[in-house]
This record gives sequence, C-alpha cells and structure tokens, in this order.
Amino acid sequence: MYKAKITITLRSSILDPQGKATHHALGELGFKSIQSVRIGKFVELEIDAASNSEAASLAENACKELLANSVMEDYQVEIQELVVR
Amino acid sequence: MYKAKITITLRSSILDPQGKATHHALGELGFKSIQSVRIGKFVELEIDAASNSEAASLAENACKELLANSVMEDYQVEIQELVVR
Repeated sequence: MYKAKITITLRSSILDPQGKATHHALGELGFKSIQSVRIGKFVELEIDAASNSEAASLAENACKELLANSVMEDYQVEIQELVVR
Repeated sequence: MYKAKITITLRSSILDPQGKATHHALGELGFKSIQSVRIGKFVELEIDAASNSEAASLAENACKELLANSVMEDYQVEIQELVVR
C-alpha cells in the first residue's frame, strides 16, 4: 500500500484572490513580514499498487483526469510506502 | 527570505465528505486501486525573516491564529530558504 501526497497549486501567472484575501487578513492580525500568500489544494491518496512507480503513475493519471485543472494548475506528487503494522 | 509550505489536513477522526465524493468520482473513472482520498489545503507563505527558526515560528503562529482550525485540523510546516538570484 502506498500513500500519494499531492499538492496542487495555481500557476504563478494566475491571480490568486483567495491568497490575496488571506494575505490581507494576516496583515491585519499583525503578520507584517509575510510578503505573499498563495493557496492550493492538498490531496492524500491511499493506493493499492505493486510498486512505487506504479503508484506514482496512477496518482499522476488521477491528477490529469480529475484532481487538477492542467490549464491553470501545477501539481506535485510524492509517494510514500505504507508499512502495515 | 523564506518560503513556508504548509499542509492543513482534517484530523483522521473527522469525516471528509469532499474526499469521499472525490473517491467515488475516481472509482467511476476506473481508478479501482485507490483505497481512500482525503482532501486538505496547501498554503505557501513568503516570509521576510532573519532565520529559519524565526520563519517557522511565524508560520506556526499564522496557522494557529488564522489558517487552520485547530479543533478539526492538523497542520505541518516546512521551511525553505529562498535564494535571491
């Protein structure tokens, strides 16, 4: 069993209004040294696969077909093996 | 300048309907080997700080005060130094 940790972020050329609002709110709370905020999604998949690379390609396909919008977003996949206790 | 990469996830005891819906949709698309899906948030902060540990404590405070709901969510902070080119 593998765990895929996927972070999906807006491409840097795309405006991020949610990040802008959060940046403003952090400034109001006194966090003046925060220069920028960008907000994305985090997806954790548990995958039944025979190998690390099989899990990675499955997670990548899931991003392409459903999880990420490849026009506006980038994604990064990190695979971890789950040890059954 | 430091970059904080923050992942905010629902605690494992909390139901994740968004993850359940995504799991179902992935199943319909033929991803039968995905056993579970959990969805969280990803926040990237650029912080003007004097040291790695100052950036880390600032990011942690931002999580506690605004970004995460500590009743329902866990968060993880990872700090990277940004090299100015």
